[in-house]
Amino acid sequence: MTLGKAPAAPPRSTLVVTAHAGDFVWRAGGAIALAAARGEKVTIACLTFGERGESAKAWREGRELHEIKAMRQDEAERAAAVLGAEVRFFDAGDYPLVATAELTDRLVAVYRATQPDVVLTHPVDDPYNCDHPAANRMALEARVLAQAIGYPGEGDIIGAPPVFYFEPHQPEMSGFRPEVLLDITEVWETKRAAMECLGAQQHLWSYYTDLAVRRGVQLRRNAGPNLGLAHTTLAEAFMRPFPQITKELA
Amino acid sequence: MTLGKAPAAPPRSTLVVTAHAGDFVWRAGGAIALAAARGEKVTIACLTFGERGESAKAWREGRELHEIKAMRQDEAERAAAVLGAEVRFFDAGDYPLVATAELTDRLVAVYRATQPDVVLTHPVDDPYNCDHPAANRMALEARVLAQAIGYPGEGDIIGAPPVFYFEPHQPEMSGFRPEVLLDITEVWETKRAAMECLGAQQHLWSYYTDLAVRRGVQLRRNAGPNLGLAHTTLAEAFMRPFPQITKELA
Amino acid sequence: MTLGKAPAAPPRSTLVVTAHAGDFVWRAGGAIALAAARGEKVTIACLTFGERGESAKAWREGRELHEIKAMRQDEAERAAAVLGAEVRFFDAGDYPLVATAELTDRLVAVYRATQPDVVLTHPVDDPYNCDHPAANRMALEARVLAQAIGYPGEGDIIGAPPVFYFEPHQPEMSGFRPEVLLDITEVWETKRAAMECLGAQQHLWSYYTDLAVRRGVQLRRNAGPNLGLAHTTLAEAFMRPFPQITKELA
Amino acid sequence: MTLGKAPAAPPRSTLVVTAHAGDFVWRAGGAIALAAARGEKVTIACLTFGERGESAKAWREGRELHEIKAMRQDEAERAAAVLGAEVRFFDAGDYPLVATAELTDRLVAVYRATQPDVVLTHPVDDPYNCDHPAANRMALEARVLAQAIGYPGEGDIIGAPPVFYFEPHQPEMSGFRPEVLLDITEVWETKRAAMECLGAQQHLWSYYTDLAVRRGVQLRRNAGPNLGLAHTTLAEAFMRPFPQITKELA
Amino acid sequence: MTLGKAPAAPPRSTLVVTAHAGDFVWRAGGAIALAAARGEKVTIACLTFGERGESAKAWREGRELHEIKAMRQDEAERAAAVLGAEVRFFDAGDYPLVATAELTDRLVAVYRATQPDVVLTHPVDDPYNCDHPAANRMALEARVLAQAIGYPGEGDIIGAPPVFYFEPHQPEMSGFRPEVLLDITEVWETKRAAMECLGAQQHLWSYYTDLAVRRGVQLRRNAGPNLGLAHTTLAEAFMRPFPQITKELA
Amino acid sequence: MTLGKAPAAPPRSTLVVTAHAGDFVWRAGGAIALAAARGEKVTIACLTFGERGESAKAWREGRELHEIKAMRQDEAERAAAVLGAEVRFFDAGDYPLVATAELTDRLVAVYRATQPDVVLTHPVDDPYNCDHPAANRMALEARVLAQAIGYPGEGDIIGAPPVFYFEPHQPEMSGFRPEVLLDITEVWETKRAAMECLGAQQHLWSYYTDLAVRRGVQLRRNAGPNLGLAHTTLAEAFMRPFPQITKELA
Repeated sequence: MTLGKAPAAPPRSTLVVTAHAGDFVWRAGGAIALAAARGEKVTIACLTFGERGESAKAWREGRELHEIKAMRQDEAERAAAVLGAEVRFFDAGDYPLVATAELTDRLVAVYRATQPDVVLTHPVDDPYNCDHPAANRMALEARVLAQAIGYPGEGDIIGAPPVFYFEPHQPEMSGFRPEVLLDITEVWETKRAAMECLGAQQHLWSYYTDLAVRRGVQLRRNAGPNLGLAHTTLAEAFMRPFPQITKELA
Repeated sequence: MTLGKAPAAPPRSTLVVTAHAGDFVWRAGGAIALAAARGEKVTIACLTFGERGESAKAWREGRELHEIKAMRQDEAERAAAVLGAEVRFFDAGDYPLVATAELTDRLVAVYRATQPDVVLTHPVDDPYNCDHPAANRMALEARVLAQAIGYPGEGDIIGAPPVFYFEPHQPEMSGFRPEVLLDITEVWETKRAAMECLGAQQHLWSYYTDLAVRRGVQLRRNAGPNLGLAHTTLAEAFMRPFPQITKELA
Repeated sequence: MTLGKAPAAPPRSTLVVTAHAGDFVWRAGGAIALAAARGEKVTIACLTFGERGESAKAWREGRELHEIKAMRQDEAERAAAVLGAEVRFFDAGDYPLVATAELTDRLVAVYRATQPDVVLTHPVDDPYNCDHPAANRMALEARVLAQAIGYPGEGDIIGAPPVFYFEPHQPEMSGFRPEVLLDITEVWETKRAAMECLGAQQHLWSYYTDLAVRRGVQLRRNAGPNLGLAHTTLAEAFMRPFPQITKELA
Repeated sequence: MTLGKAPAAPPRSTLVVTAHAGDFVWRAGGAIALAAARGEKVTIACLTFGERGESAKAWREGRELHEIKAMRQDEAERAAAVLGAEVRFFDAGDYPLVATAELTDRLVAVYRATQPDVVLTHPVDDPYNCDHPAANRMALEARVLAQAIGYPGEGDIIGAPPVFYFEPHQPEMSGFRPEVLLDITEVWETKRAAMECLGAQQHLWSYYTDLAVRRGVQLRRNAGPNLGLAHTTLAEAFMRPFPQITKELA
Repeated sequence: MTLGKAPAAPPRSTLVVTAHAGDFVWRAGGAIALAAARGEKVTIACLTFGERGESAKAWREGRELHEIKAMRQDEAERAAAVLGAEVRFFDAGDYPLVATAELTDRLVAVYRATQPDVVLTHPVDDPYNCDHPAANRMALEARVLAQAIGYPGEGDIIGAPPVFYFEPHQPEMSGFRPEVLLDITEVWETKRAAMECLGAQQHLWSYYTDLAVRRGVQLRRNAGPNLGLAHTTLAEAFMRPFPQITKELA
Repeated sequence: MTLGKAPAAPPRSTLVVTAHAGDFVWRAGGAIALAAARGEKVTIACLTFGERGESAKAWREGRELHEIKAMRQDEAERAAAVLGAEVRFFDAGDYPLVATAELTDRLVAVYRATQPDVVLTHPVDDPYNCDHPAANRMALEARVLAQAIGYPGEGDIIGAPPVFYFEPHQPEMSGFRPEVLLDITEVWETKRAAMECLGAQQHLWSYYTDLAVRRGVQLRRNAGPNLGLAHTTLAEAFMRPFPQITKELA
């Protein structure tokens, strides 16, 4: 939807709120790369490094906590750079990530500073990882608080940017239904390169490549044969918790 | 989404499948008028005249069945003309509208003849009107059959056009959740004029005007204060049973 | 709710639409007896005798179809008499009970003849007995058709009487949630006597007695200790598919 | 339901637990006025003044926090007086309203002091306002704790009063389904007068008037044409999370 | 569960009810091969050849209906032989497969003839293929009818065999949740060989191989690291609409 | 499922996480007794004594808190001994049981110490008792944390043991659906004896005996007439939040 902004408008802004260092790559790397390729600003609020819950390989190798955090930070920063995004680390501690008013307040500040046109985060449920729902709750609550002129803090209040939930690892068990299929074919190489920055989770490279293929098949199945889509279409799936606002049904 | 069609492409086509003569006006008049205003083709497959179930005033005045059908046909044709659409009557008999393979087959023919880019119809449930779910089932089944090269009949097979469910009379009781809010402000006068063609249901004119206002408030609430929308925004709400296909999250 | 009727108003009328001969006893015997005890009219539209699906004992004893139907009819008539209701048999054939427009039309006639203030029927789902959902669909559709002045047939149109779904045999597997708990303590002996008319299903006498006790415990648990309810409260559970209309929250 | 109380019983008591100062007016003003008109006691436990989240106009005018709280308190007290209710402010701080054991304990004390026959509060979900679900959780938890003789504190334990959820601002997005429609026609002028006490949210006066009209139309549609209801019926909608206890189906 | 059958008991029997010729291979080939490998009897009731809806390649090549049916029958028979199962064709006509009492009755006869210990069929919903829900409805209804001594026909009545729904093509859009993950690693080569019999749908070979890998990953994730499962575990997913009966929680 | 463990494997281990002292008896006594009878180890993590919320009789008799806790502990220990299980008390305080990171961490230690093959706990929702959902959340979160090599603490990490939710007091109101029916006939006398250790809740003895009968009827109804089950089958019902892993459909 383009609702005629004034010429000098700043570039569109996307805010990604994730629990762990790897999530933005596996689950939204294509969306991020597409936005960056259009010249838009993408900011990733990464609540933890995933140091305890998604760094099993490093722990088995005998690394210490500070080493693991540094390693995950380095990986995430390189992946973000590949995608064209900026990543901010909150270092809130994972497994468990505990939702607090203080952490939510820091997110409000990021919302107001980045003035997002689009927000991406985890879906509501994930029985395999309690940190993901915690990130979801804080991301949604901070979005509402950041809209209120009465909520204290720096920066202008925000509007009501649309929210997209990215795909969890076990979608059917987490109540995930693909409501939006995003064609990421043209940035696929970028997403794959970003995935390959994440050496701590190498077993997921092919897993998420296969997922992109499967979502691509689904995209073509829902778009019909007439669109001339290539057999190599790749896609990411999202949910939309708030209504889409549009001037045209399509 | 515009996925670069060849220059000589025909205008976009919208197919609206409704149970009764009035449904397309109350529930989708704005969407139809917007499409027509963009120069697109809109075809309404009207399965019945609503002669038994939504013509109480005429029955109380002592009219006979053939008179009522003629009157509803006339009203609907005038309303369609105001909106810029073509209406085809199936005269399948309402209250109850009985889903049959023959009627579904006639819908397949319309799908193939009109090659819709967008389909609008009733949602799955409506405990207050059994004809609406019957129309939904046939509209969805015909859409699938029309895609199959093995299904006999005239015309080319179709793709997989997106489907939108329009709003029932009692949304919360019918499992309706606004997933798409369409800004119809610029065609509001047209929709109102079309509503006023429906003399048999005059009590609904203000009801559906109020609904457009309420959906407009909701649209602004979900779009945020930054979009510069007027306080007089008017809207229609839709559900999306199939995933949205897109190249950009917005 | 009593919305001050004129003094000469006819007695309140209850219509019970059931699939088989035994259903109205096990599932709504208390509600029927309570209404009858208040001097109200209760009519049971019994679509089949349950001759194939709920007469296993008689089949094992080698009875023939016509004998079984006669036996079930006799049992049901005696049970209805005990409860104070009139039963009408449609003899539509069970296992499977097939929903047809003709059968629905016969139900419309009963709606218009009895002008019900309250309707009782089966809930929407029952994975253990397909006849129950079929009865539900026809009962609901006939109720809507009977409201339409344009639907042909004898008798006056009806209003929109509240509908209650009675409890299926396996409530949790059938999506049943007790939304209304009816205190049937004072008519319990009558319900038990009606159950004992059903010799073909003797194994259910204690089963449905235990259920009444359990629903009674639940009633007391939801009513609180202050109401002075006896420890012997017995109850039936119902769902309410349409909103309750009231002048007082209680 | 009237289960014969002794003659000297105290008047019935209603407890309303709300997040912000305005909620009880918009969402339950009719229910409150009806109860008060019957001579019953109504107590509003107002957890916050809505000073941050629903006072945007005052913040834009440059008021300070203490001024806004005082203004909202004054408005709410005047509105409560119009409705015939007593309001108690908890001043727990809104946006966010944080659920705590201490706040819940204060609610337990109110439950035990007021011995409610009916409880009104927010529904479980509201994606547009996190304070509403927080109020719901505390209201429900305090109701359970107040029933336990082992939970410490002043006052007698309570029974299990029925709970009603009032309507949120965006019902379909909050999982709200009208399960009870309350006819508030006779107290409408009182509710409107109470709404007009809320100068901070003037834009909502007509919005909630239109809602009352729409719920009134729905009430008439679900009550049928035979009840002789006026075309000007006005209504409020509620959900019922616990089963209704009754001696008569109606 | 093994509930000690008498020594001379016949081999266990599995009945698979499918809409089209290919379904039993893609969706349940592993389950079938496992049962056959244990020496059990597997019967596939194949309601149609999938001649119209899943034979697009043949239609594009200009084949005629009778040729396509013969070709699909031949493919399916070869695939069934590879898996170790017997396939019975009902030739009921696909796209649309119309549920009828006559077809259901033929299924009852198969239930009684095969006396299944396990039943496999399509899940309740599939918005992409209306034949699948039609097959589900008939499979479930016939299972209930076949249990009734009063339902006429040859053969003994059946018990209440557990039912498993196999995975549809778009699981999340069809309400499919993996409730049972079946380890098919040891029969994978057999399933792959059966898939390769289906020349008409060659594009699905790799798709369903990838799915088996993904369900295998999910199986290992839900089984924990301690089970010593190979990294090459392959699996099929199923739903269970009826409760599992067991003597041990595991 | 038995996936060939090495001969010297320790006995299977079951971990039961409950909110109050009585829960493991009423809701899972049969499952516990069955496991113990097979020579397996069963550990009950009992978060509170139920001293405030489920000891009404003792409070009415004027006992003090420490007495009630001692009495409930004694009862629970005797009941556990009867069943053949070990019970560990966390004494976390009930009504309300407050979920904390510290308490969850203590549960992680129990998971790692007991290395459970099966986990039993409360279901997600219970509108009548907030402590039950709190126990559920901590039991599930601790299970995930205990799997992570990066989570600190004594003991080996655990696998992903299957979880079973036992039946709440009001199943339909708590979203409980029997997904697993466990035949407890052979240990029924043991369960009954354990129930009779709980003098504080004597009114529940017959209630949960009746429930076992009703679940037994349901088990037989879902197992079919062919299994030769006695008419006195007794059962417990469970939900399964994670997929069943199996090598055979049954």
